[in-house]
Amino acid sequence: MSQSEKKAVILLSGGLDSATLMALAKRDGYDCYAISFDYGQRHRCELDAAATVAQLNRAKAHKTIRLNLDSIGGSALTDTTIDVPVELSEGIPVTYVPARNTVFLSIALGWAEVVGAGRLYIGVNAVDYSGYPDCRPEYISAFQQMANLATKGGIEGNPITIEAPLQQLSKAEIVLLGTELEVDYSVTISCYNPAPGGEACRVCDACRLREQGFTDAGIADPTRYQ
Amino acid sequence: MSQSEKKAVILLSGGLDSATLMALAKRDGYDCYAISFDYGQRHRCELDAAATVAQLNRAKAHKTIRLNLDSIGGSALTDTTIDVPVELSEGIPVTYVPARNTVFLSIALGWAEVVGAGRLYIGVNAVDYSGYPDCRPEYISAFQQMANLATKGGIEGNPITIEAPLQQLSKAEIVLLGTELEVDYSVTISCYNPAPGGEACRVCDACRLREQGFTDAGIADPTRYQ
Repeated sequence: MSQSEKKAVILLSGGLDSATLMALAKRDGYDCYAISFDYGQRHRCELDAAATVAQLNRAKAHKTIRLNLDSIGGSALTDTTIDVPVELSEGIPVTYVPARNTVFLSIALGWAEVVGAGRLYIGVNAVDYSGYPDCRPEYISAFQQMANLATKGGIEGNPITIEAPLQQLSKAEIVLLGTELEVDYSVTISCYNPAPGGEACRVCDACRLREQGFTDAGIADPTRYQ
Repeated sequence: MSQSEKKAVILLSGGLDSATLMALAKRDGYDCYAISFDYGQRHRCELDAAATVAQLNRAKAHKTIRLNLDSIGGSALTDTTIDVPVELSEGIPVTYVPARNTVFLSIALGWAEVVGAGRLYIGVNAVDYSGYPDCRPEYISAFQQMANLATKGGIEGNPITIEAPLQQLSKAEIVLLGTELEVDYSVTISCYNPAPGGEACRVCDACRLREQGFTDAGIADPTRYQ
């Protein structure tokens, strides 16, 4: 591998998917540059989980970008006046943060250019997911096209490849993969509305998908619940 | 016009181009939602200029998003250890901030979704520009494609249109257009490396393009120089 092919930037939220993602990138031989976002989310304790996951995976660097998306609002995750739903809803749920993956991928793309990484890993999933538009394969593909034109490397024939290896896996398959890769899921947080100590609510979309994943995979769920 | 067609989000840096852009959106009948970025740029005083321009144009709202792109570095504009060049360079200059327009457009896209704006104005220019990859028409077009797939509105058949009306204008043409629209350029700041009081350096790329624009347009240059 060339120098840039050996480095990967990993979008690391501190949840189940991104912990599996990072273990996968590491297994594939990449030096991992993890990036997390402090964007005014109500589940800020996921940032501590991200730091732990980065450390356990011996990240070359872990950067936390602060940006006040809560000043934009429009989502139950960034606006404390909108409740996190405890039941499944029709269509795109209120936990959708407008353009969140686009913002995160864009900043990560910038960092990938700076460190000279050839890969950018994102843990989106289009099977057991909340129905967000920016988790779908056609979206990731369009982001790639745009990124090829946006960056210096793209212009110079050395584009950054967006990797979304969890895209077509069920939550149970992700749990099985991560278990094989020895991911410690007990340190990860997926809950949209955790208690101050980080205990999961068990009723939000993210908790229900996660718990079902462990059940379907036949793996003991190490999540700390309220 | 429908409600969403009447609202536009404007990327407002406080420079000559974005001041012209906002005046243009206003002339075209849009309620303007201006958005600026405090991203660790060395020319932070452009943010005061942006606030003034927003006020002069009676923006419905003006939001400043803070994000620490300086922690990523990689550009003379965000890394104080890299000097702003005072002479023209070959290729993409060191003032290029990796993925900057992608980051700004993405956050603005999120805000456009929240306020229900149908248009997103960006003042990129592909004629008299610094050679940044993310100012080119093919880039803007790819961002539009991606945005159509990224957003709730896009999925529901109500996409946000990216408007880049300055794209094919020379700097002189932008100055003439803005003068016709009664833009007060004396309050705008384009310089990459201004003095603490906001006086322009006259030697960076941005200053040279701007000064040449006024000269070519035959309009008196109101810029405060050092």
